[in-house]
This record gives sequence, C-alpha cells and structure tokens, in this order.
Amino acid sequence: MQFTSDIKVNLIQKMGGDHMVVAAAKVSTDGEAAEKMAYESAEGKAGLINYLMNHRHGTPFEHSALTFFVHAPILVWREWHRHRVGFSYNEESGRYKKLEPLFYLPDRERLMMKIEDWKPGRPKFTRCESDSVFEQLCSNLKQAYELSYAMYEANLALKIDPGLARDCLPVGIYSGCWVTCNPRSLMAFLSLRTHEPDATQISYPLWEIEVAARICEQILESGWPITYKAFVNNGRVGP
Amino acid sequence: MQFTSDIKVNLIQKMGGDHMVVAAAKVSTDGEAAEKMAYESAEGKAGLINYLMNHRHGTPFEHSALTFFVHAPILVWREWHRHRVGFSYNEESGRYKKLEPLFYLPDRERLMMKIEDWKPGRPKFTRCESDSVFEQLCSNLKQAYELSYAMYEANLALKIDPGLARDCLPVGIYSGCWVTCNPRSLMAFLSLRTHEPDATQISYPLWEIEVAARICEQILESGWPITYKAFVNNGRVGP
Amino acid sequence: MQFTSDIKVNLIQKMGGDHMVVAAAKVSTDGEAAEKMAYESAEGKAGLINYLMNHRHGTPFEHSALTFFVHAPILVWREWHRHRVGFSYNEESGRYKKLEPLFYLPDRERLMMKIEDWKPGRPKFTRCESDSVFEQLCSNLKQAYELSYAMYEANLALKIDPGLARDCLPVGIYSGCWVTCNPRSLMAFLSLRTHEPDATQISYPLWEIEVAARICEQILESGWPITYKAFVNNGRVGP
Amino acid sequence: MQFTSDIKVNLIQKMGGDHMVVAAAKVSTDGEAAEKMAYESAEGKAGLINYLMNHRHGTPFEHSALTFFVHAPILVWREWHRHRVGFSYNEESGRYKKLEPLFYLPDRERLMMKIEDWKPGRPKFTRCESDSVFEQLCSNLKQAYELSYAMYEANLALKIDPGLARDCLPVGIYSGCWVTCNPRSLMAFLSLRTHEPDATQISYPLWEIEVAARICEQILESGWPITYKAFVNNGRVGP
Repeated sequence: MQFTSDIKVNLIQKMGGDHMVVAAAKVSTDGEAAEKMAYESAEGKAGLINYLMNHRHGTPFEHSALTFFVHAPILVWREWHRHRVGFSYNEESGRYKKLEPLFYLPDRERLMMKIEDWKPGRPKFTRCESDSVFEQLCSNLKQAYELSYAMYEANLALKIDPGLARDCLPVGIYSGCWVTCNPRSLMAFLSLRTHEPDATQISYPLWEIEVAARICEQILESGWPITYKAFVNNGRVGP
Repeated sequence: MQFTSDIKVNLIQKMGGDHMVVAAAKVSTDGEAAEKMAYESAEGKAGLINYLMNHRHGTPFEHSALTFFVHAPILVWREWHRHRVGFSYNEESGRYKKLEPLFYLPDRERLMMKIEDWKPGRPKFTRCESDSVFEQLCSNLKQAYELSYAMYEANLALKIDPGLARDCLPVGIYSGCWVTCNPRSLMAFLSLRTHEPDATQISYPLWEIEVAARICEQILESGWPITYKAFVNNGRVGP
Repeated sequence: MQFTSDIKVNLIQKMGGDHMVVAAAKVSTDGEAAEKMAYESAEGKAGLINYLMNHRHGTPFEHSALTFFVHAPILVWREWHRHRVGFSYNEESGRYKKLEPLFYLPDRERLMMKIEDWKPGRPKFTRCESDSVFEQLCSNLKQAYELSYAMYEANLALKIDPGLARDCLPVGIYSGCWVTCNPRSLMAFLSLRTHEPDATQISYPLWEIEVAARICEQILESGWPITYKAFVNNGRVGP
Repeated sequence: MQFTSDIKVNLIQKMGGDHMVVAAAKVSTDGEAAEKMAYESAEGKAGLINYLMNHRHGTPFEHSALTFFVHAPILVWREWHRHRVGFSYNEESGRYKKLEPLFYLPDRERLMMKIEDWKPGRPKFTRCESDSVFEQLCSNLKQAYELSYAMYEANLALKIDPGLARDCLPVGIYSGCWVTCNPRSLMAFLSLRTHEPDATQISYPLWEIEVAARICEQILESGWPITYKAFVNNGRVGP
C-alpha cells in the first residue's frame, strides 16, 4: 500500500506552437500564402494572437496538439472525462488489469471548501486549522483504503471477474490515463479547473484537478508562450 | 445502508421518431418538400431507413433526442462518460451533496469474465458456480462498503470538505445522472455496450453497463421501431 | 428564376424548456429527487438559471433540443456548417437533386462592411447610400446568376453528372437544410452570429447569417424565456 | 483567370505514429509502464493494431495528429466541412480577402455518375465517352466562371462589402483551408470519401473529394503504415 499527494502530468509529445496559431489564422486573409508562416517564428505576432483570443476566434488554436500521461486518483478522472470536445482518452482498465495499491491522501496545505447547509455558489476555502482533525481525516481514509484493497485482493483470490472484484475500490485509488488535447480545448479546461480571483469568470474547482491543471498550464506556457499570455491577459476565458 | 443489483433508466422526455429520420433524409433529394414528411407517419419507409443504416448515412438519425435519468453505480459512469459525441450529462455531485448509502451488489446470475494471465481478447463469461464463493464476494464487498461509508460520515462529521471526505467511497456507490443523446449516438453506445453473438463486431461489455444499455435499447425500440429493427438487421453497427 | 432576400427558419420540433434546465442542474445537489422538477414549471427559477449562465455551467442547457428547417443561400451554409459541436445537419444534395433556381439578392437595408485595405478587425457597417450603386450590384448578381443557372441546365441536358454540372452554380443559390441543436449550442451560435453593441464580446457577423440567427433567437426566447433572458443579461456569452 | 483540375493537399505537420497507437492502447493493461512504448518502435505490433481496428477500439488512434493545407474548390469544402468530430478548420475568408480567380475544371478521366430519374442508391460511374460533350461542359463552366468573376470584380469596384460582392461566385472557385485531424477521424473520412469495391461498406463519393482523400490516404500510409494496413485489411471501416 502506498499513499501520496502527488499528481503526475508528463508531456509525451506535442505538435505546433504559436507560429501555427498565426499561420492558421492568416489563411483567412492570406490564403495559400499563409502556409509559409507555418515555418516561421511567431515573434512579433502577439497582437494578432491577442486579437484572436479577445474576439473568441477559437479555431486557430486547434491546429496544435499535446499528449499527456496523467497519473491521478479516480476522483480526478471523474471530472476530467466530462470534457468531451477536443479531448481524447485512454485509461488503465479495471477489467483487464489488477489496479496498483496507490492511494491519494491530501497534502497538509490542501484548502477545504466550507459548505454551510450544503449550498453551492461562492464557496469559501480555508486550510484545515487543526492538525488533529487533518490526521483523523488521513487515518479515516487510510483505514477505508486498506480494507477496500484487502477485499479487492480477496475477491481476486476467489477468481472473481476483476471488473466486479474492484467494485469496492475507492475513488481515491490512482489510475493512469493518456490525454490528448489541443490548446483551445486545454484553455477551456483551464478556465474551469483553475481558480484565479481575477479571472473574468471565477471558477471554484476541486483542489486535486487544479493540481493537474496547473501542470498542464505550465506546459502550455512553455510551448505556446504568446498564446498563454493572451489567455491570461484576457481573463482566462477560453477562446 | 442499502444494497441492490438494480440499475434504473427512466425516460424523461423524447423528441422525434422514425418519421423524423425519414424527413431529414429526404431533404437530400426533395429539398423543402421533405418538411411535410416530418408530420406524416413513417409507415412504409422501412426500406429507406434500412438503406440509411446499411450505408452508414448516420446524420438523419441525429434529428431526434432522448433524455434519461439513470441511477447506476459509479463504475458504470466511469465507462458511460467516455462516450463524448452526441451525449450530454449532468450528474450528482460529490462536492455539493452528501451521497446516499446505496451500493451495488451483483445479481446471482451475473456472468463472470475469466481472465487467464490477465489477457484481454475474447473473454469467456460464465456464471459463478459456487454459492459460497458468490456469498463470500458479496460479503467482501459489503464489508468494504460499510467501512468506507462509515469513514465518509466520520470525515463529514469533522466538517471536512465533502469533495475530499468522499475519497474513500467505492466505485460501487450509486450516482444519478441525466443523459441526453440521439438515436445515432445511442446506437454507437449500444453497439459497444451490449453483447450479441451474431453482431457484426462482437463486443464484450461490462455486465453492469449492459444492464443499463438494454433498457435504453427497449426505449429506442419503442420510440423508433423501424430504426431499431434496421439496426438489429444490419449487425448492430452504428450508422 | 426567382430572386429573394428572405431567409426562412421553421421550427419543426422541440424538446424541453426552462424546467429541464432546472431539473438537469438540480441533479447535482438533489440527486434522484431532481427528476420530479422535469415535470414542474420553471417559474421562480430565474435566479438559478442566471447563476448557471453567469458561471458558465453549460451542460444543463444541453437537455433540450430544437430542429429547424432552414432555407438559405449556400453562402450562409458555408458559415453555419462550421459549427461542429451540438449541431446536426442534413442538407439538400447537389449530387442527387436538381437545385431550384432561387437566388439571393440583398435587401435594400442590408448594411455593408467597409474594408479599407482589406483589413479585418473592427469593421464599420453602413447602408449603401446610392440607389444606383445598389441597383448595379443587384443587376450584376442577377446577370451572373442567370448565366450560371443556364449553364447548369445546359450541362444537365448533356447528361453530365449533376455533382459536376453544378460546379458553376453560385454561392447565392438557395439550399434547404435540417438543423438540430440544443440551447447551449444555439447560444454559442447566437453569440458569434449576431451583432449587439453591448455584448461582452462584440461580433461582426455576415448580415445573411444574422438574419437566420435572429429568427432562431426568437424561437429560443419563446420556448426557453428564462434561459434567453439570462443569456441576454449576461452579455450574450454562451455558457 | 486560371483553370485547373488539381487539388492540392500538403502535410504541414504531424504528431505520433503507430508506436503512439500501441502505447496509448497498452495503458489499458500496463498502466504507467505503457509510457515507455511511446518512445519505442511499433515493429512487431501489427497484431495488436489489427486487433484494435477489428474490434473498433478507436480511441488509441486519436493520440496522433495531422495538419494539412488543402487547396480545393468550394464544392469540396461543402462536403468536407460536414465532418465535425476530430476535425479542425481554418479557411480563406470571402469577407476579408479578395478570392483569387482560380477555378475547377474536370480532368478528362473524371468518372460521371449516371442518375436515372434522379434516384440515388447504387450509382454507376462511367467516363464521358464523347469528347465534344466533355468540351461543351468545360466551355459551359468556363463561360459561367468568367462572367461570375467579372461581376464579382465589378461589385468590388463599386466598393460593395466583399461578403456580398462574392454572392455570384461559383462553388467551382478554389479556397484554401487548414485541416487538422487525427488518424481515427481521418479513417472515418476515408471510409466515406473513397470508393473501393471491396470495402465492407462501399461508398460512392464525389470524385473531387476523393482526389483529396486519396492524397490524405497516402500521407496516413506513410506516417502510420501499420495502422493503415490494418484499416485496409479490415474493410476500410473506421474504428
């Protein structure tokens, strides 16, 4: 049994860059001639990219691609897989593979949403003040994780179909998934799955998916720096 | 704590029918005049619908819609939500709602996949022969379910963020979800999530999602009988 | 030969309404119990719907549907068909049907975009001041339309494949198309294909597609009045 | 004025290859360990790829990407843009750019569909036997093209909005478009837009789009040879 707060996002491959955004956009006004921009630097094109972002001309941001391998607890996948457009997935199977005993425990700094009377809306988030409460939480989770996994292994020892044996496994268990997207779909994801107080539309995502989203965000920034800057400067609204 | 093998699919609303498939298809050759077919019976149009299905002219099957409320364990949603095209979802939230203690236990007749050396491919399915093995499985699942839910409630009693408190809940817990799709996307779902030995491409779905899929299939048959018959007669290949 | 400025949008069928938006959204916090809201009025739920719109919780707006028959020149379809998500189409075929000699001529009030040096950005639109210029334009279009259609018929008389015979037909010829969408995809369409000076992101659409969009907008307002009002009040940003 | 039968497809960039199909598929059974296959050759993996294709496990084919620049007449775009899933487009604008006077004329070898009484179904295609008929067709098209373009230029000379001035331009005029897709969406396109007598489902596409599709097909073969072979060997049914 292993417990971790880490969520891993590895960039496996990428295609394109800011120059492809520019070249794809310029086909509109330059036609065939825009193709040569696919082989040129995007330097000096921040104005155009900012214009596209600001006016929600989203399609030029689709001619690039990124593939990630992400290792995260199932509770993250439960949300991530709801992104249907511009996202491709292949995930570890609970039917054809024995799942590894790796489980999620929160980092001590994880902020907690306070729900008064279970009302959503503008939740407040605070760090858990009490060490003993936090320890109790981790202990509760571990206890359930351990028994669940023991029962899973007991079911497998009975030669039960793995797709049934795993029904007692918790959403805190880790699962690996390949994710392919493009800068446009990734920005839509980031706008909903990160919290920025000065975003045009403030989102209150689940902490764990934000951890993953922030790594994706750095990868976007590193490969598409002008695009990323325009995204941030325009209130983090996906184009 | 409640345990059940039931998976519920309620049809909430629907739009269209076989006549809309016909009318939408006929715009191709009849233009404006096809609109009147939207208000006529599809009787006598089995030949056309069969032709569309057989030649994979899929779009005419998109001008209808169905909304289901489905109550199923999370392990079913883990698969269902991977259907991205022509599917809309709204699901119960583990962040803003306390999840009910309703858990999945297999029906005695549930077939079990045998995995030799964990190799996928053409799995064999057999009923669990031993009553005692089956009872042991159910007992294992219950035991894990019970402790997991107790820990969940303990976490909530500590005023922990529900989106974190639930990390120990198992994929066997039930969750409700609204699902809207159209006959084309539903047939794609059915072709992958039902097992028919004489389908053109035989699928080996998870038992639990097939239970849900079979109810959807009856609803499709009842509202789009000619379409459904053509689907079956053409090897259950989604158009 | 017929010439017209009319663009026709007929509502063929619809499913859902504001109450379905409410019911689908409430599954999040109410689970199974939300289903009953599917059968109740949405009266008094403007606050919730406004909240969904404002926070870009888009999925509850997908559990409704609308089917239109639209008769519009090909130049409109060239833009409309670029809406890929949440849109289904079946269009009149130029390969299997003789296209009718119905052609688009602008209304005298159609605003004209001024392009200085062919630069896009924030175009200005003005009514054509000169009657004689407008008449000359219409005369030019008609002349080309007439010869093009005559050549089309000449090609057909030669027994040429209709999918080739039509290559000389102009984008101003009319074509009929079935369009099925949902309120969410329709609002994305409206936000890009209508011009409102006080929208959060001002769009400068083609006049002709805006004519069609405005009819769709009225249909949305009539069937989903609370949703529509929330869309307008939130800057016409699609959720 | 220029006339051509050429349709151009340039590969601008690509990501992935057969090895990515393998690696993405293997996450199912190998989890994290599959990531290393992303950096290995796919040699010896034809069996796995064939299995995926044959069983319609389509998602592993989505973790690759291709961007094309395509120069083709509007009549081709009218069909191509109907492919909504896994396709991204940016096209030359008729509103912000003067369209070049480049027009499509059929190659002498272009096969002609015979439509008896305008009935679709299983059309027959034959080469135009008569030179004089073929010449008459080309002459008809040219005549219409020339007048249409002259009227377009006359409209522009009147300072008419280019998005209106172009309404008389024919669907035979060329337009450039960036197209990004993935092997899965490309195979869906190929299965519908190429004619192969021994395909599982025989398609009867428009000649001109097949010309483009065949170039795409070569590019797929060259970059994903094992995938391509499996596609062909499995009846050209998109997975």
